Amino acid sequence: MGNIKTGIVMMNLGGPANLDEVEPFLLELFADREIIQLPFQRWLGPYIARRRTPKVKGLYASIGGGSPILRYTEAQGRGMVERLDRLSPETAPHQFYVAFRYVRPKSEDALRAMQADGVKRAVAFTQYPQFSCSTTGSSLNELWRAAGRTGLRDTFEWSIIDRWPVNDGFIEAMTETVREGLHGFAPAERDQVLLLFSAHSLPLDVIDRGDAYPQEVGASVQRVVERLDAPNRYLLAYQSDVGPVRWLGPSTEQVIRRLGARGEKKVLVVPIAFTSDHIETLSELDREYGEVAHRVGITEFRRAPALNERTRFLDALADLVHRHLQSGERHSTQYPLNCAGCSNPQCRNILNPVAGTPAPRRGVMRASV
Amino acid sequence: MGNIKTGIVMMNLGGPANLDEVEPFLLELFADREIIQLPFQRWLGPYIARRRTPKVKGLYASIGGGSPILRYTEAQGRGMVERLDRLSPETAPHQFYVAFRYVRPKSEDALRAMQADGVKRAVAFTQYPQFSCSTTGSSLNELWRAAGRTGLRDTFEWSIIDRWPVNDGFIEAMTETVREGLHGFAPAERDQVLLLFSAHSLPLDVIDRGDAYPQEVGASVQRVVERLDAPNRYLLAYQSDVGPVRWLGPSTEQVIRRLGARGEKKVLVVPIAFTSDHIETLSELDREYGEVAHRVGITEFRRAPALNERTRFLDALADLVHRHLQSGERHSTQYPLNCAGCSNPQCRNILNPVAGTPAPRRGVMRASV
Repeated sequence: MGNIKTGIVMMNLGGPANLDEVEPFLLELFADREIIQLPFQRWLGPYIARRRTPKVKGLYASIGGGSPILRYTEAQGRGMVERLDRLSPETAPHQFYVAFRYVRPKSEDALRAMQADGVKRAVAFTQYPQFSCSTTGSSLNELWRAAGRTGLRDTFEWSIIDRWPVNDGFIEAMTETVREGLHGFAPAERDQVLLLFSAHSLPLDVIDRGDAYPQEVGASVQRVVERLDAPNRYLLAYQSDVGPVRWLGPSTEQVIRRLGARGEKKVLVVPIAFTSDHIETLSELDREYGEVAHRVGITEFRRAPALNERTRFLDALADLVHRHLQSGERHSTQYPLNCAGCSNPQCRNILNPVAGTPAPRRGVMRASV
Repeated sequence: MGNIKTGIVMMNLGGPANLDEVEPFLLELFADREIIQLPFQRWLGPYIARRRTPKVKGLYASIGGGSPILRYTEAQGRGMVERLDRLSPETAPHQFYVAFRYVRPKSEDALRAMQADGVKRAVAFTQYPQFSCSTTGSSLNELWRAAGRTGLRDTFEWSIIDRWPVNDGFIEAMTETVREGLHGFAPAERDQVLLLFSAHSLPLDVIDRGDAYPQEVGASVQRVVERLDAPNRYLLAYQSDVGPVRWLGPSTEQVIRRLGARGEKKVLVVPIAFTSDHIETLSELDREYGEVAHRVGITEFRRAPALNERTRFLDALADLVHRHLQSGERHSTQYPLNCAGCSNPQCRNILNPVAGTPAPRRGVMRASV
């Protein structure tokens, strides 16, 4: 039995660590009805997953044979915990536990490790800055289900950091990546660079249910642009739409084509809704869209670096958890609000919540802002 | 010849002042290809306008026989100009000129009045806080065309205030309306009230072109919620979609239906993208959606007041123009950026711009933020 006082579960999508994990990853992804709803999902999900496996394997092969997301998440966790032990000795020692949604380490792995470490106080900390039911929502629902499956329903006292779209440290770190990206351009041309913020898209059906994601992404973009305080023009687009349904636009790829057609020469793409490099940055933005940009005459197409192990981002993660622990809040004000069109009774639950305020009080500095 | 030193053109949609103006208003609206694109527009536009006239007349009859938007715009203009004369004696005297898009006073009226007043320095000041090509874009394009039609292309030196989604004074005034709205509920129940921010929707084709509107609306909502610093849950929806094409969701009306079905009892709707009461607040939100809310079991459905003649909003308008004049900027950084999918060569022009910086410089406090 360990002596960890506060356990912090870092929830994220995850990605296959090697090529053998690609098929299981896709099978899990296409089985998750909280992210994709297919007719005859039990049959169609595995069919689509298997059919896409060779192509996706090729993409992972091209970025070094696997996703770096576990490596970065662990580096972020280490940096966060080290800082938290200094910032908040009263809740130390802290430990982080990775809970990916579609590959190991999964929620079960995190929960069992917490049990072994003797954790009582647990924070479910989403690694998606902006809330969506498809990402943070799905991860939380799975965390509570996993607690049931492992018999650990009553072992921990939980609180949730469910969103942080305009958290000061996050915005500062993100702005730093934009500044670094801009420094890749010649000084005389820097102010003419177009900033293309790109976030993962969502099917319009999810948007029409009332998902908070586009509002929060819009707020993040505004705050970064304000913090940057530079004369660059900017726009927000959404990447990675797939399949026959209509997704939230404008599509990043189409925007790039159109910018090129309009004679735009210098573009810096800024991934605004991811914290680590993964297939959507290293392959889709850098290679796939990079080739598109080249073909349509954008002579300099660069990407702002992902947050990854950046010092300011580690500071931000620690600060977010520290404020959250100090506030005594169980979750954000927004968390209990199901989407208007929600039909999933699992959504917006919290297991065995910590004693204290159910939600932030009036006048209390919230971790989320 | 008057002695006005600075003319401020307040651009807005406008609305019929009386029932006789309803048909001409709709005819102009459905003729504007910058807001609605119809096949065979020269025939289909008037056909739809005339067919809708009786219904829309009925709506205006129910709110007192006409739109109050001119009255409010004039009150806002007077308050703004009075403050500006005090704040900025070096650019005084100031005068405001209303330029509505689809009813008089139109751009021509504003330009001719400015000429009569001897104005040389002119500011085109959108009254839509968040930029869309369908609103501010259309108004500006029309303003430049009207200058051509009236032979006043070289009479004024122009700059533009093209957006102010997170302007401090605007956010403060908007937050004040939310606080007042909340005070309509019993103190013990106030924290349980759901805030339903509502903005006019746009067809998805406009969104997919890359219109800035949803990003900026999302940013406004976030800022108001932060300023409010209250435990209320909130969501953002889009109202007034019409016709067969798909619009940006979630739809305010559908959200109200679904909130009712989910047992939500107390809702405060907050118009986040309008500055004055008009048909969309007084008729659509208050009456139409109010009846829907009642039918679906929302027992208390209230609306935050529009900004109208609120002192803090008059302060905000004056402060916006003052900072803009001080900055020497011609327009926001964003203004020259056409939508990625733009095919309108008129867009993003500025006529006879004032000498000075083409756009805000790095490190200069921008009026727009």
